[in-house]
Amino acid sequence: MSRLLIALGGNALGDNPKEQIQAVKRTAISIVKFIREGHEVIITHGNGPQVGMIQLAMESAIKYESKIPEIPLAESVAMSQGYIGYHLQNGIGEELNRQGIIKPVVTVITQVIVDPEDPAFKNPTKPIGNFYTEEEAKVLAESRGYIMKEDSGRGWRKLVPSPKPIDIVEKDAIISMVNSGNVVIAVGGGGIPVVREGSRLVGVPAVIDKDLASEKLAEILDCDYLLILTAVDRVSLNFRKDNERKLMKLRVEEAAKYAEEGHFPPGSMLPKIQAAMDFANSKPGRKSIITSLEKAYESLLGREGTLIYS
Amino acid sequence: MSRLLIALGGNALGDNPKEQIQAVKRTAISIVKFIREGHEVIITHGNGPQVGMIQLAMESAIKYESKIPEIPLAESVAMSQGYIGYHLQNGIGEELNRQGIIKPVVTVITQVIVDPEDPAFKNPTKPIGNFYTEEEAKVLAESRGYIMKEDSGRGWRKLVPSPKPIDIVEKDAIISMVNSGNVVIAVGGGGIPVVREGSRLVGVPAVIDKDLASEKLAEILDCDYLLILTAVDRVSLNFRKDNERKLMKLRVEEAAKYAEEGHFPPGSMLPKIQAAMDFANSKPGRKSIITSLEKAYESLLGREGTLIYS
Repeated sequence: MSRLLIALGGNALGDNPKEQIQAVKRTAISIVKFIREGHEVIITHGNGPQVGMIQLAMESAIKYESKIPEIPLAESVAMSQGYIGYHLQNGIGEELNRQGIIKPVVTVITQVIVDPEDPAFKNPTKPIGNFYTEEEAKVLAESRGYIMKEDSGRGWRKLVPSPKPIDIVEKDAIISMVNSGNVVIAVGGGGIPVVREGSRLVGVPAVIDKDLASEKLAEILDCDYLLILTAVDRVSLNFRKDNERKLMKLRVEEAAKYAEEGHFPPGSMLPKIQAAMDFANSKPGRKSIITSLEKAYESLLGREGTLIYS
Repeated sequence: MSRLLIALGGNALGDNPKEQIQAVKRTAISIVKFIREGHEVIITHGNGPQVGMIQLAMESAIKYESKIPEIPLAESVAMSQGYIGYHLQNGIGEELNRQGIIKPVVTVITQVIVDPEDPAFKNPTKPIGNFYTEEEAKVLAESRGYIMKEDSGRGWRKLVPSPKPIDIVEKDAIISMVNSGNVVIAVGGGGIPVVREGSRLVGVPAVIDKDLASEKLAEILDCDYLLILTAVDRVSLNFRKDNERKLMKLRVEEAAKYAEEGHFPPGSMLPKIQAAMDFANSKPGRKSIITSLEKAYESLLGREGTLIYS
């Protein structure tokens, strides 16, 4: 039996509470397959749409409503961890219950340390929130000072800084919970970004890449596999082109070469490849898999997905 | 050394992120005194202002902003657990760090089961959110269908149903975390209210009284003390009257008699007295204390606060 960290992508969740409850039902079925077989499972997730929605709602309410305080981005990330964690632990709990498996599922609010000197703070690259038309985007940029950018042909989104994760504040608690048999949901949305100031940890306005934070946690927990779940079944070369080639296996050196050749779009497949390479390189025997929620279980058996190994 | 559940009141937190970070610093100093002496500490907290703020912001944003989904009250409670839990674990962590005490502090997102037939659903009594003038309250009642009520001379607030807590879904995880030495923050805001529907747990629009949920958790964890922290140092008879009498000790039978005589206002001191009595009655030797944050430590030594015992 293996210890697996499963990093859920946006399509495992959905864009509003109703969608999310439905999406999480499917997600739970995929996850419980691993638990049923005796694997130890740790779950992480993104929060782009959710934290963007929370921030936009709070900013809008300040404008139109009296007595609404300003909610910084770090606090919005914390809210998104509570919101998404609730749905995940509820949905996974239900599926375990339905299959007669007794196992606690629990969400840990997680702070992740970043470097205040990280160049990301001067160059926002992480898209959050809704997709907008170019016109809507211009209005938001002017009225709120948002930095807006076109995102992979899907529309315009707000960009925020995405500094690298350095350490996970609640790691000792997470280790003890995983070791005592809990299904743990942690580093939601990449974690609440904090910087060290003496004995203090201070929240900063950023969203950490959830794949890089997941990789960090997978190392800390000495996982055997890092499973990064996304919208595609396999990593491709020449993605969406006539000569697209889906990859079944990928040595770290090959992955690095393809990354350098520009096969993987930044902010989308590139951080997943980076996280997958980092994990496969971190210790002999550790492997990463990039695949979809639907193919996750078959991927661990080597039948689906893209395996990244060193 | 004792196992203590400390239920924090609104004044331990504050009404907006800046205030809350400051308030939590003072709260952390009081809490770490117990940890320093070797006591096992579990922390719970209210969320009235915070969940009210989140709900109002979300509702306002739906009205004025495109693409903001409806966020039900249960999801708003989950968000408030993430938001408040983040500040508490950050602040307590900082104080432990400053004193050189190595101990993980961790927030667990917590669902609490309620009865769908609880009469509270037909009679909202729990005030949440900001205080408004009578005129503002009338506008909110008309424009949003809020049920508004004057709250203890402090202004008008929204009322929501407050069903009784029946069980804590994440109890096994919480027990194992407390037993392995973590400082656990749980059942924030009384917990996310859910009802059983077959193998499912479904969120419902309510806010559970945090003192009653805390009492439930204190029983489950076999605590020695339930400390309910509030705005006053001691429970009073004839509160704020000329013949006010502060109580140092209170047998459960006396407390019940005074409660019946109407000494304790519902929605304020009454649920605290109820929780304190329930806990003191639940097993021989268990004691409850009602006091302020500032007097909490001295109260455990018997020098301050009101002790409720059986």
